[in-house]
Amino acid sequence: MSINQSVNQSTGQLTIGLFGFGVVGKGLYDVLHTTPTLQASIKKICIKNAGKKRSIPAENFTTEAALLLNDESINVIVELIDDADAAYHIVKTALQKGKAVVSANKKMIAEHFEELLQLQQENNTAFLYEAACCASMPIVRNLEEYYDNDLLKSIRGIINGSTNFILTKIFEEELEFREALTLAQQAGFAESNPKLDVGGFDAANKLSILLAHSFGVIAKPREFLFNGIENISRPDAVVAGEKKYSIKLVANAKKLESGKLAAFVLPQFVTPKDDLYHVQNEFNALTTESSFADTHFFKGKGAGAFPTASAVLSDISALRYNYKYEYKKIHHRTDTQLSTDYYLKVFISTDDLAKIRKEDFEWIEEWHNGFKQSWLVAVIHAGKLFHTGWWKQEGVSLILCPEPIIENIDYRKVSKRSLELAGVI
Amino acid sequence: MSINQSVNQSTGQLTIGLFGFGVVGKGLYDVLHTTPTLQASIKKICIKNAGKKRSIPAENFTTEAALLLNDESINVIVELIDDADAAYHIVKTALQKGKAVVSANKKMIAEHFEELLQLQQENNTAFLYEAACCASMPIVRNLEEYYDNDLLKSIRGIINGSTNFILTKIFEEELEFREALTLAQQAGFAESNPKLDVGGFDAANKLSILLAHSFGVIAKPREFLFNGIENISRPDAVVAGEKKYSIKLVANAKKLESGKLAAFVLPQFVTPKDDLYHVQNEFNALTTESSFADTHFFKGKGAGAFPTASAVLSDISALRYNYKYEYKKIHHRTDTQLSTDYYLKVFISTDDLAKIRKEDFEWIEEWHNGFKQSWLVAVIHAGKLFHTGWWKQEGVSLILCPEPIIENIDYRKVSKRSLELAGVI
Repeated sequence: MSINQSVNQSTGQLTIGLFGFGVVGKGLYDVLHTTPTLQASIKKICIKNAGKKRSIPAENFTTEAALLLNDESINVIVELIDDADAAYHIVKTALQKGKAVVSANKKMIAEHFEELLQLQQENNTAFLYEAACCASMPIVRNLEEYYDNDLLKSIRGIINGSTNFILTKIFEEELEFREALTLAQQAGFAESNPKLDVGGFDAANKLSILLAHSFGVIAKPREFLFNGIENISRPDAVVAGEKKYSIKLVANAKKLESGKLAAFVLPQFVTPKDDLYHVQNEFNALTTESSFADTHFFKGKGAGAFPTASAVLSDISALRYNYKYEYKKIHHRTDTQLSTDYYLKVFISTDDLAKIRKEDFEWIEEWHNGFKQSWLVAVIHAGKLFHTGWWKQEGVSLILCPEPIIENIDYRKVSKRSLELAGVI
Repeated sequence: MSINQSVNQSTGQLTIGLFGFGVVGKGLYDVLHTTPTLQASIKKICIKNAGKKRSIPAENFTTEAALLLNDESINVIVELIDDADAAYHIVKTALQKGKAVVSANKKMIAEHFEELLQLQQENNTAFLYEAACCASMPIVRNLEEYYDNDLLKSIRGIINGSTNFILTKIFEEELEFREALTLAQQAGFAESNPKLDVGGFDAANKLSILLAHSFGVIAKPREFLFNGIENISRPDAVVAGEKKYSIKLVANAKKLESGKLAAFVLPQFVTPKDDLYHVQNEFNALTTESSFADTHFFKGKGAGAFPTASAVLSDISALRYNYKYEYKKIHHRTDTQLSTDYYLKVFISTDDLAKIRKEDFEWIEEWHNGFKQSWLVAVIHAGKLFHTGWWKQEGVSLILCPEPIIENIDYRKVSKRSLELAGVI
């Protein structure tokens, strides 16, 4: 094992090697220079493109990662680059060298969670990533520290700022999806590859991280149900408006009666009584439900250079006190497992009813046949959604109904007409 | 200095001496017994009245405080009694004996803040009191830990569940103040002395604690402006409804341009765009505004046995990791001082205009003379409110307008009519 270079509490001095100087890296640099109480300085910044013109002197930069990783005076690596693979190698090497690491790369963290956990333990170093979930909001730390002893029942939230911005614009300004996406990109809220946001991948990566800190479950995005908002159309927004709903991309994790965990990221109708209804634009929010504290709701900016930089800075600050995630839920866990053995109440709209696999439904509650667009409300087993893809194809949009999870079905209470409809269309 | 009996991290075993077995104490007892992962047990419970029938065996109880305070095997004192003076002596003695202490007694903490801070330092023990502010919500800890490096601009919140419950009932069910208070008492949300809640004292005590953890300012409630909701009448609610406002008792602390701090607890009109508008019944909420993270909003239950017990339990759990408040803002503070040198835009209603000291206003913006009730909207210097009491007398209610703080007045922009009105009524 390598020499442990992690932060010395007696001096408390943090010497930072920074990877990446995009909007967040630059934001962090600016924030560090306006925060007098933090004994932290950036020694060197590793960038990809040496030729690019920058706002600070050239001697701050290098293109040699090794120059930072091998520098024993650097005790903190802050990784803020886009490329998840390159980020993984930087973080891994830094942890192996006993350096503390701060990262905002949710994709990389979600993909390599188990290995990164092991690296922290083996090298007794801290790896903090508050900025990876909901940017400015202290979500990871609160789930880790505050809800460690209370029995969490569920977490629910809007954890991707870009898609929430797009949905807000579709609703408020009646824009089409493509126009709203362009606006989000112009405002700097979208990932460089917008597919990561609008395809639900970014939210799924974040839910993967949150599952570990809230329920002690280590699961990659491909292990649970998720989708984005690409197929949401203006007609969907019109139906939502008529029902006094809004549409949000919602991440969910809920303890089922079986003791297993339902987890998914899907678009959802939310009512004005739902706290998530009032979360607009690039804001993120999370609701926790626990046995004793009851419901908590937390809202803050989930995208943008300064909000993200502020979370990175909070992690840097926590290193001064030798803070580490304890991963209490993982260590105390009673081996909670994911399950798709529950039902979901869904709204599905389509430009062609032939695209709908009607035999997958338990029953159909509403059915509206239109010239250009048809829609229905039905109940479907989550396992059927997980194992099929027809509901993700172009021209089909699936949106969860409010309170979508149905754990047990009593078929005696399902109306005959609903069951007939499932056979009719 | 006494022997340090605080928690030993190597064993992590917490042996608790509990003072008080009211709803919260009983709640804590129940919660501890349903939380398997917490290595904590209650050794003895000190109560006032030995004769009272209780739900657990008599051998758990004693009326001798010394039995708990002198027991060296007890390393944590949890203080959950009503009497602030008795609580102070218990907490002081426990800290002097090197025991860690958890308390929910906001009145006691606000009154003795400076001394309790010193006792913690002298005896190198932890004194945690998350439950003292907003019950279940991790407000103190987030202000202490997460916002330590970001530059806080303001905090604003609903921090008394009982008054919020009453105001909700006045609005939703059109009850009179007295009826709503009775309901709150029946629901168990009111302090045993309701004057503490409805007179604003409880919220002021909490703001006093929050000031220390958010801005490093140690101030007793009498050092800032506060009032309760006793004089809020149905006609006030009617006016609010016409203006599409709700009325909330709001605690505020805001950095002024001068670098000083405005701090007050007063009833306030809030608009539907304000996150606080949607905070109902016994829920509490806090909004933080900071330079980089921007605005955060946090909502949760601010009253009730289990929500309060869950926060006490989180503190107990944190002791296992030797957690202490660092009081970073106090130690880093650039000597921030309270100020009343700013103006407030206020709505005032009264049953008798003679009760209004019109010469205290800078100007009057609206004035409605009614048969039973008259009201006006005016601008007044905060110092004038702080040093006078006419606006607190029976038959007068003062409610802040939305965005009430005016730092600088440009008299050239104030209409002639407004200035005339101030001379007219």
